[in-house]
Amino acid sequence: MLRKEYLMTPGPTPIPPQVSLTEAEPMIHHRTPAYTEEFVRLLEGLKKVLLTEKDVLVFAASGTGAMEAAVANCFSPGDRVMVAVGGKFGKRFAELGSAYGLEVIAYEYPWDERANPEVIADHLRKDPDIKGVFLTHSETSTGVVNDVRAVGEVVKESKAILIVDSISGAGALEMRTDQWGVDVLVIGSQKAFMTPPGLAAVAVSPKAWELVERSSSPRYYFDFRKARKKIMEKEPQTPFTPAISLVRAMSVAVEMILQEGLENVWERHRILAECCRAAVRALGLELFPKDLTGAYAVTAVKVPDGLDGRELVRHMNRRHGVILAGGQDQLKGKIFRIGHVGYYNFFDLVVALSALELSLKELGMDISLGAGLAAAEERYLEMTERAKN
Amino acid sequence: MLRKEYLMTPGPTPIPPQVSLTEAEPMIHHRTPAYTEEFVRLLEGLKKVLLTEKDVLVFAASGTGAMEAAVANCFSPGDRVMVAVGGKFGKRFAELGSAYGLEVIAYEYPWDERANPEVIADHLRKDPDIKGVFLTHSETSTGVVNDVRAVGEVVKESKAILIVDSISGAGALEMRTDQWGVDVLVIGSQKAFMTPPGLAAVAVSPKAWELVERSSSPRYYFDFRKARKKIMEKEPQTPFTPAISLVRAMSVAVEMILQEGLENVWERHRILAECCRAAVRALGLELFPKDLTGAYAVTAVKVPDGLDGRELVRHMNRRHGVILAGGQDQLKGKIFRIGHVGYYNFFDLVVALSALELSLKELGMDISLGAGLAAAEERYLEMTERAKN
Repeated sequence: MLRKEYLMTPGPTPIPPQVSLTEAEPMIHHRTPAYTEEFVRLLEGLKKVLLTEKDVLVFAASGTGAMEAAVANCFSPGDRVMVAVGGKFGKRFAELGSAYGLEVIAYEYPWDERANPEVIADHLRKDPDIKGVFLTHSETSTGVVNDVRAVGEVVKESKAILIVDSISGAGALEMRTDQWGVDVLVIGSQKAFMTPPGLAAVAVSPKAWELVERSSSPRYYFDFRKARKKIMEKEPQTPFTPAISLVRAMSVAVEMILQEGLENVWERHRILAECCRAAVRALGLELFPKDLTGAYAVTAVKVPDGLDGRELVRHMNRRHGVILAGGQDQLKGKIFRIGHVGYYNFFDLVVALSALELSLKELGMDISLGAGLAAAEERYLEMTERAKN
Repeated sequence: MLRKEYLMTPGPTPIPPQVSLTEAEPMIHHRTPAYTEEFVRLLEGLKKVLLTEKDVLVFAASGTGAMEAAVANCFSPGDRVMVAVGGKFGKRFAELGSAYGLEVIAYEYPWDERANPEVIADHLRKDPDIKGVFLTHSETSTGVVNDVRAVGEVVKESKAILIVDSISGAGALEMRTDQWGVDVLVIGSQKAFMTPPGLAAVAVSPKAWELVERSSSPRYYFDFRKARKKIMEKEPQTPFTPAISLVRAMSVAVEMILQEGLENVWERHRILAECCRAAVRALGLELFPKDLTGAYAVTAVKVPDGLDGRELVRHMNRRHGVILAGGQDQLKGKIFRIGHVGYYNFFDLVVALSALELSLKELGMDISLGAGLAAAEERYLEMTERAKN
C-alpha cells in the first residue's frame, strides 16, 4: 500500500499547510520594522491564547529550555522548592532544580492520578520557606492533566510562586494563566501551537519578577531581564537572534487558534479525547489514567496482556504509517499513547483508530474490526449533535 | 470541528507533497537545456507508464484538449467514425466528432455496463469505411471500465484506428497501449498522474500517423505534426510555451509511479476499489455498475431511496470536509461517486467511509455505524495478507 505518514504523537504534531507555507517564506532580517511587527503580533496573540496580561518572553529553544529558564531565573542555589512529580516531565523539573543547586522537595504522586492540591497546601503550611511550586499541567508521558486552578488557589495563599509546565496543555486545553494564579507559565511551539519545535515562551507574573530580580543563579541566553528589556523598547526585539521563520510560523498558528475561538479549540480537544476513549474501550482495551478529569491532550492506553507494546508501536508505524508514542521511563512497553493535541480533527482520529484495529488483529489479538470506529462515530455524533442544539 | 478538506473526487485528486514542492520551485525558462532535460525525463517516464514505444506528445491543456487533438489530427470532415457512448465522456467524443464535421455513428450501450466488443466488430465488418473507433477506457461518470484489450483485437483487424480516452485510467489501471493495439491514447495530469490539471498527453501509433498526415481538419495549437517535429530535434521541445511548472511536477509524479512499480500501483487501486465496495455493500447501499470487471478507479453508488443525492454530497462537504462527486447528466442526483484513482491509500478511504457513515446517519438513514468500516478493514486484511504470502 502507498505509504503516507500520520503523526499521532503528542508532539511534534502535524503542521497546518498555511503555517508550513509561512515557514518557507523568504528570510527577512530580524532587526527591521517588518520583523518587529510580526514578533509583536505573536506576543499579543500569545497573551490572548494564554489569557494573560503578563509579560510574555519568547526564546529560540525547545520547551525544556524554557523550563530551565524558569528555574534559573526565579531561584538561587539553596532555595527550597517543591516539585509535583507524577511522570517524566514532573521529574524533569526536579532534575532541573537539582542541576541549579536548589533544595528539591519531590511530591511523588501515582503516575495514573492527578496531584492532590491538599498535599501541596499541607507542605506549604508546614514549610513557609518553600519559594516555589512546580506543577505539570498536562503530563504528556501519562495523559493525566492536573488541576492547575486548585493548585493555584493553594499557592496563592503562600509566599511561593507557581511554575507550570503547560507545554502540552495551553492552546489546546483550558488554561487561564492570570485567573488561576500561575506565576510562570511555560509553553512550546510544537504541540497545541501547531508549529515545528524550536520556539518556547514564558509568561511571568509580578510576584515571579521579584524573585527574578533577586536570583543569583547563572544565566545569560535565557535571562528574563534581558528579554523583558528588549520587549519594552519602542521597537520590541529579542536580545539574541530569534528563530525568525518559527516566529512567523507560530504567529500564523496562533492566529488560527484565535480564529477558531479558544473555547471551540478546548471543546474540540474534549470531543477528540472522548471519542478516542470510547473507541479504545470498545476494543476491550484499558486506559492508563485512573483520573481522566480534563485529560484531553493524550490518550494513554495500557498494552493488553500478551502483546509487546514496543512491537505494536513499531508495527503501526512500519505497516500503516501511523506514528504513535510508546511509554516512557517506567511505562516503557506498558502503554502506548495517541496524541490528539494540536491540528487534529475527527478524521485524523479515525485513521489512527483504523490502523490500531488492523494492527491489533494482525498481531493476533481477538478484536472485532470496526468496533472501535463504531464507538467513536457514535460518540462523535452524540457530542456534536448536542453542540448544535 | 476543525475543518480539513479531503478530495475524494475522480479528478482533480490529491497532490503528493513532493509534487507540490516541485511545482513551487522557481520558474525556469523553457528554451534551455535544463528544461529540455526535465521534459525528456517526463516523456521517457510516460512511455514506461503507458507501456508504449510510440511518440508521446504533451500539450498545455486539460484532457478534453487532447481528446479534441485526437479528433482534429486523425480525421477529415465527412470521415465516418464510431463512438462507443456509455457515459458523459463517451458522449464528449461524439460531440467532438460532430464539431469537426465527422459522420459519427454512436454505439450507445447502457451506462451501467461495458461496451460489447462484438457489437463494435459487427459494425466494422458491415461498414469498412469506418475510419476510427473511439472508446472510453475508464468512464469516470459511471465507474465502468471498458475492455480495451478486447476492443483492440477487434479494431486491429480493420482499417480503422482505435482512439482511447484513458484520462482516469492509465497510470492507475492496467493499460498496455502497444500490446492492446491502441492507436491514440489520451491522458491527463490530474487523476492517476497526481498532478494539478493543465497538462495532457497523447501516444500516437504509426497507423494513426498515416491519418494525421492526410487529415484536412483545421488545427494549429494541437497539431501533432508540429509537436512531433519539436520532440525529434536534438534538444526536444514543444512548439508553443509549455506549462513549465506542471511538466516538472508531473515528471516527479511519474517517477513516483515507477518507483512504486506499475503492477503495485494497479494492485493498490484494485485493493482500494474492493475495500470501498465491501464497505458500501455492508452499509446496505447498491453499486451503480452492473459490470464491475476491472472497475477500480471510481466507485459509483446508487443514492438510496428517500435520500437526495445532491444533499448527501453537499452535507459530506459542508459538515465533514469530504468532497465526493455527484452524478452527471442523466445520473444527476441518482448516484454519488467516490474517487480512489491517484494518490490514495487505505486510510484515505477510511476517512471517506467514516464521513459517509456519519452523513447517512445524520440524514436519517437507518444504518449501523462502523459496519462499512469493519467490512473495508476485513477486506483489506484479506487482500494484503494474501499479497504477503
